[in-house]
Amino acid sequence: MKKSNAAATAEMCFGELKIENHRLKIGGCDAAELAKKYGTPLYVFDVNYAVKTAAAYVDVLKREYPDSTVCYASKAFCCTAIYNLLAPLGLGADVVSGGELYTALKGGMDPQKIYFHGNNKSEAEVEYAVKSGVGYFVVDSLYELELIEKHAKKKQNVLFRVNPGVEAHTHRFIQTTTPDSKFGFSIADGTAENVILSALKYKNINFVGIACHIGSQIFEPQSFEIAIDKMTDFIVRLNSLGVTVEQLDLGGGFGVHYIDEDKPLTSEQYMANSARYLAAAVQSRGIKKPHLIFEPGRSIVGEAGITLYTVGAIKTIKDLKTYAAVDGGMFENPRVSLYDARYTAVVATKADAERDTLYSIAGKCCESGDILIDGIMLPKLTGGDILATFTTGAYHYSMASNYNRNFVPPVIAVKDGKSAYMVKPQTYEDLVRNDAILEFSEDGK
Amino acid sequence: MKKSNAAATAEMCFGELKIENHRLKIGGCDAAELAKKYGTPLYVFDVNYAVKTAAAYVDVLKREYPDSTVCYASKAFCCTAIYNLLAPLGLGADVVSGGELYTALKGGMDPQKIYFHGNNKSEAEVEYAVKSGVGYFVVDSLYELELIEKHAKKKQNVLFRVNPGVEAHTHRFIQTTTPDSKFGFSIADGTAENVILSALKYKNINFVGIACHIGSQIFEPQSFEIAIDKMTDFIVRLNSLGVTVEQLDLGGGFGVHYIDEDKPLTSEQYMANSARYLAAAVQSRGIKKPHLIFEPGRSIVGEAGITLYTVGAIKTIKDLKTYAAVDGGMFENPRVSLYDARYTAVVATKADAERDTLYSIAGKCCESGDILIDGIMLPKLTGGDILATFTTGAYHYSMASNYNRNFVPPVIAVKDGKSAYMVKPQTYEDLVRNDAILEFSEDGK
Repeated sequence: MKKSNAAATAEMCFGELKIENHRLKIGGCDAAELAKKYGTPLYVFDVNYAVKTAAAYVDVLKREYPDSTVCYASKAFCCTAIYNLLAPLGLGADVVSGGELYTALKGGMDPQKIYFHGNNKSEAEVEYAVKSGVGYFVVDSLYELELIEKHAKKKQNVLFRVNPGVEAHTHRFIQTTTPDSKFGFSIADGTAENVILSALKYKNINFVGIACHIGSQIFEPQSFEIAIDKMTDFIVRLNSLGVTVEQLDLGGGFGVHYIDEDKPLTSEQYMANSARYLAAAVQSRGIKKPHLIFEPGRSIVGEAGITLYTVGAIKTIKDLKTYAAVDGGMFENPRVSLYDARYTAVVATKADAERDTLYSIAGKCCESGDILIDGIMLPKLTGGDILATFTTGAYHYSMASNYNRNFVPPVIAVKDGKSAYMVKPQTYEDLVRNDAILEFSEDGK
Repeated sequence: MKKSNAAATAEMCFGELKIENHRLKIGGCDAAELAKKYGTPLYVFDVNYAVKTAAAYVDVLKREYPDSTVCYASKAFCCTAIYNLLAPLGLGADVVSGGELYTALKGGMDPQKIYFHGNNKSEAEVEYAVKSGVGYFVVDSLYELELIEKHAKKKQNVLFRVNPGVEAHTHRFIQTTTPDSKFGFSIADGTAENVILSALKYKNINFVGIACHIGSQIFEPQSFEIAIDKMTDFIVRLNSLGVTVEQLDLGGGFGVHYIDEDKPLTSEQYMANSARYLAAAVQSRGIKKPHLIFEPGRSIVGEAGITLYTVGAIKTIKDLKTYAAVDGGMFENPRVSLYDARYTAVVATKADAERDTLYSIAGKCCESGDILIDGIMLPKLTGGDILATFTTGAYHYSMASNYNRNFVPPVIAVKDGKSAYMVKPQTYEDLVRNDAILEFSEDGK
């Protein structure tokens, strides 16, 4: 049977995603059977894909740039089980809040391999991180520096987030180094070197390096090359001021495949290319080879995930469009409303059937804007069909809410034909767990 | 002392919001003291304002159109305590999910006064609602009609959501009745009358009326008048087909005051005007006066809420802008990223001080787009200042997420100088409550 575009797309995206006997399989499990067993909406996570991708990163750097750490960018998908999977491979973690730090530690991550990012860490978070023995703060303000100085009991290793002024070509919400970004200290205007010099005077601060993050969903390796040039030039400058730079954190941002138009290199290609480019840049500048950190998140977990929905109401508006409503929506995938993100989908039980009908896939939230896919060719749908969307492993569960008091869907791991909960389902009791009965106490007059 | 714009704005917005001795007071409580007592970010909810607004709606309809129900649109702010406050005033509830229904019942709402809306109720939700004795389904698909028919044990009262083709002037995400909306059955193309006629044949369905919702943040009373004309014309048409219409649900959408440019009429004005207009429309068409339902949500709770933040990192980017970062962000106020929503703010301890410095108020999420206010004049800020944003009672707590594993902030009710939890704070344990250790079981091959 000739494969449809959909089938080709599916098999291109996922390590273990297959179509067998017209049915979608992920991690050796039948998608429709998973929907039946666990209910929908359901996040499904292909363990082998994520582990293989993460391991490949570690291997690539071991080969190309051995003095390095691959840190998993927790914000993409944070739950204890993900660290259970990634820590044994030798990855560290990039965390951006006390909550992510707590989860990483709970998941068995070595605190010494944790880099604590974020533009506005609270005092409570700084205190908690110091107590936890977190390896590195990536400092993003003088306010934070003061907080670390106050709470650290001994020299705390810190990097500084700098802004190299590189703009990767992505949606404006996920750009990070335009000149007026809220992140980092500008190299160009001298702010970065000034704050680093000032940090050397702090009793409890041990400056070890610099960090940048040039954007998300990056498809041009040149973006990283430009960033490496700017960052190594800056190391030369710091050296000339008497400052040694032990570590260079190049962040993440490797693009993944959401729809056919996305044409990423393989993640290893990005990373290998960047590592080689850095080695050359360091050599040509005659500077000490820094410890290299990369922080991939989306590229490890994004394509490992699919979301399963049950099709409910189907409604044709004469001469305009046909809606197929699913039991998910912006509460479990806010990326469409937030970023105009685009997805592809297949029907789990007829994954390679001819796509002859145009649908708009609507969510169940009470907002007109809650549309998951605005126009997709699919085989004719009927209520009860299981629809699968791809590349939902990153920034779906982690951004999910209880909007409209819908449940955050559970996350199921699949591997070699077996399945297991990574995150268990919510219950009605969970929704009201923190709700209180009003009992007023006197205060605040 | 001459009042600044900020002070004037504040006092115009809130029933009980005051500035005393330069300090912001809400519900008789000192805002900065609340921040100290409960921590930040903190949602604060002025009970008297919400109760007064809701009671005024009930009173207006009692006077202008006695055969009526005011239903609180739960999606604006859903927790058990809000029903504790509103149910005793005689309000019913509009719910859009099993979770909202569960919470409303938990909060003491009479199920008979509950209208269950939503474009894609799941079978589990329909079953649960029937079992709970919910008063009315507002049916939005034939799929739903079949589910009700299947699960109802006796005649279930239903209204049909119709699309009158009225477009209120609001942001596209919160428009609902453009011709290609996912909501409702079109009156214009004959779909609405066809589905209603077909419903009469169902054994367990009791058709009682029609519902519409023309948009959100509506500032023109004319929008409602046009909707009333279209809906009563449709009643005439249904009558001519032998169908009696007992109830007319006109939805909600009354605008509230976020920033100075928003100039809403008072909510009572909208409602009184619409009720009178409907009475006249009914009389002139010679149709039976239907039971009227209005479903205000945002206008009851929106201006009752403020959010308190602590200012952390302050960062000036030479010649470009100054960021003041707060300990909130898109996880607790996604409306800015989603709708480009705009807010005003004051410093709680110097609420009427001169505003001489331009800031961009940044959130703490690791996204460049996480900016809460992109440009606002404020008195000079320092780390530790308490910043208050206004009109955060609706679609803030209800849309909040744990993105970046930040906590959903607690909600504090204030009243006559007293404070109490409406929703208690989350803990790190809450964040990992449903996280599982991977244990695979055989299946799905």
